[in-house]
Amino acid sequence: MYDIVIIGAGPAGISAAIYAASRGKKTLIIEKNQVGGLIANVSTVTHYAGIVEGETGMTFAERLKKQAEGAGIEIVYENVTEVKLRAEKKEIKTEQHTYQAEKVILANGTSPRKLGIPGEAELAGKGMSMNAAKHGALYQGKNIYVVGGADGAVKEALYLAQYAAQVTIIHFEEALGCIEEFKQKVVGIPNIKLRLCSTLHSVYGVDKVEVLEISDEKTGAIETIEDSGCGIFVYVGTVPNTELYTELKLQNGFIPVDENMETEIPGVYAAGDIRLKQVRQVSTAVADGTIAAIHAAR
Amino acid sequence: MYDIVIIGAGPAGISAAIYAASRGKKTLIIEKNQVGGLIANVSTVTHYAGIVEGETGMTFAERLKKQAEGAGIEIVYENVTEVKLRAEKKEIKTEQHTYQAEKVILANGTSPRKLGIPGEAELAGKGMSMNAAKHGALYQGKNIYVVGGADGAVKEALYLAQYAAQVTIIHFEEALGCIEEFKQKVVGIPNIKLRLCSTLHSVYGVDKVEVLEISDEKTGAIETIEDSGCGIFVYVGTVPNTELYTELKLQNGFIPVDENMETEIPGVYAAGDIRLKQVRQVSTAVADGTIAAIHAAR
Repeated sequence: MYDIVIIGAGPAGISAAIYAASRGKKTLIIEKNQVGGLIANVSTVTHYAGIVEGETGMTFAERLKKQAEGAGIEIVYENVTEVKLRAEKKEIKTEQHTYQAEKVILANGTSPRKLGIPGEAELAGKGMSMNAAKHGALYQGKNIYVVGGADGAVKEALYLAQYAAQVTIIHFEEALGCIEEFKQKVVGIPNIKLRLCSTLHSVYGVDKVEVLEISDEKTGAIETIEDSGCGIFVYVGTVPNTELYTELKLQNGFIPVDENMETEIPGVYAAGDIRLKQVRQVSTAVADGTIAAIHAAR
Repeated sequence: MYDIVIIGAGPAGISAAIYAASRGKKTLIIEKNQVGGLIANVSTVTHYAGIVEGETGMTFAERLKKQAEGAGIEIVYENVTEVKLRAEKKEIKTEQHTYQAEKVILANGTSPRKLGIPGEAELAGKGMSMNAAKHGALYQGKNIYVVGGADGAVKEALYLAQYAAQVTIIHFEEALGCIEEFKQKVVGIPNIKLRLCSTLHSVYGVDKVEVLEISDEKTGAIETIEDSGCGIFVYVGTVPNTELYTELKLQNGFIPVDENMETEIPGVYAAGDIRLKQVRQVSTAVADGTIAAIHAAR
């Protein structure tokens, strides 16, 4: 029996746990994958106030983990399969155990959206849909394609340009949708090329990407590009991890909360990217976790 | 002429500036005193997710400053004397200059509340009302009195115990009002003594504190303590720095905002401790700044 169970060990979940523990609450974090969540995969953590210079997603995640452990927080690495949020004692079932808690904080964020194109699943991890920070260096001197034009995509394109012969950003709109800082940086890097009004249509290959097809959004024309051994990194947004939360009314898949981060179910809170809101940054996730835990601990 | 002028260089203001600059906005911060705001004075920065281990208020403030400078943000150290927030081009006057801006973010936080007792003003900085991180070591082997029982007071009492012969926490309530983590730490430190249901009534001395009077909240009795050369550190809450913002309707002195951090005046935002809200932590100040700047930059 825990006072507070937190699902997800990203910035929101870790922040919530630190505050819950500081209020003397018996706190458990259940994490499916890795501390840090999606931010653990980014090449650099930018714009978070007080961030260590040159902090990568991986070093930031390690710092969060160490901080949580230092605060005496228990983290289990298990996959949640069912929740009973409306029960008196809330229940969280994983593949291994069933946990009970007075309060629950849902902080399991979002997952990268998939393109849903031919070849994507077959070539995943084999040249397609990888982690720039982890796999970028493997494409030294090769061509890299980054799919997407928002902050996350362009940030990783800038990072990957140090390795690639050529980085091509494939984006369906007429202009990049990222912040000005990244737009200006792109202009200054000669081996980044924009391919706008374009989408990745399909990829082919065995054990590596050999051919990709890019479709022109205006004409519908499909160009076939042979580029054996190239890398394709996809950043086309995220989808909230809310499939299990059928007891809650969702909005576009996200969880609505009040200003205390409490959901429509008393004692159930949501924090970070999983909740309905406008600004999704590390800083806002961390604040959500702070607010949720302080209220849950009352 | 600036796109965005930010008043205050604490965590909220710095975070706002970093985001404003990343959106390509010409950004100015006007700071009266020091980067970091009140947090620059704390002995340790606790509970902020991703904080460097052992980070002091001063090292955190330096990190914020370096980060802002690295992002190309202009910071001037001037005292704001007048604002015209309802003007088409908003105007901010300091003792030296007049600045104009499209948008303004008010992030100048709060100031420590004073006790308003005899001797407080006369002995300020001479044993009374000092900065624990900066002056604590000067009281090696002497007695220290900490006035206040909330998080800020007890955190500094814990820090000061390493220097003091004896730390006495003077608090007007029947129990400490701080988080459980700090309560438990206090129990483990033999040279911290609690003096509950008590208030500091007056201090006497010339160039140093010589005598203090403590009043018993229940009986009204006043005890006179001779403790020449002791240190008195006061943490009895804060008051919002909103005297200049007469164009805004305030609530208990704080600035009400909507979920985008915008005040009732279009183009005027408030972020951090200065705004009306329930949870005042570094993390929530940083998120406020993020949200205010992203919306102001639109």
